[in-house]
Amino acid sequence: MLGRVNHIAIAVPDLAAATASYRDILGAHVSQAQPLPEHGVTVVFVELENTKVELLEPLGAESPITAFLAKNPTGGMHHICYEVVDILAARDQLSAAGARVLGSGEPKIGAHGKPVLFLHPKDFFGTLIELEQV
Amino acid sequence: MLGRVNHIAIAVPDLAAATASYRDILGAHVSQAQPLPEHGVTVVFVELENTKVELLEPLGAESPITAFLAKNPTGGMHHICYEVVDILAARDQLSAAGARVLGSGEPKIGAHGKPVLFLHPKDFFGTLIELEQV
Repeated sequence: MLGRVNHIAIAVPDLAAATASYRDILGAHVSQAQPLPEHGVTVVFVELENTKVELLEPLGAESPITAFLAKNPTGGMHHICYEVVDILAARDQLSAAGARVLGSGEPKIGAHGKPVLFLHPKDFFGTLIELEQV
Repeated sequence: MLGRVNHIAIAVPDLAAATASYRDILGAHVSQAQPLPEHGVTVVFVELENTKVELLEPLGAESPITAFLAKNPTGGMHHICYEVVDILAARDQLSAAGARVLGSGEPKIGAHGKPVLFLHPKDFFGTLIELEQV
């Protein structure tokens, strides 16, 4: 089911400082900051050779990463996104195996304009997993 | 400086259960468990198309992931490993920029038989970064 690692998401309290750190200290190629108000985050893409890291900063009062940053004020790894070919087939297979899909269970359009689902971290040893249909 | 994402490491309290979950529920290709007593972990490699996830379980009394699992009993994302071409040049450049290298500052031979260093997570927004020379 799992294809490529699409991205590793890291929540940070200060996106400008984190971007400067990845660009100037770690020597990585970073994108411009992109506000995604419908997802409650501003994102910077760190482009690596084989995948990417996404630095996320909360945007707005309803940001999905606010609670995470309250628990982890300096920031931290938030989720891993894997690509799947057919997200509805993946969802049905996961549900049949007893894994919990977050929210309504219906895919939403994610930050890249493609259907995504999130799986309950307690079903996967503390790791929040995003599936993205590509 | 940063090349490929070599792996994403996930610490788990029960390696057999986590391996079964990635293999049987997520449909990923997983390796046999490999005890690495000199690194204080047993590891299973989850092979993805473009990188790999490493599932880590503590091995022995001095395991470097015991404290992490005490804080995160269900498990969680532990570190990201990036490849670099020259680990001594990377270290010197990082140190000059004020980033802290863990331990003595001298590279050790990591779980893949190659020189590695770890960077202080407080200098990188809560993410523990491993550098591996390839």
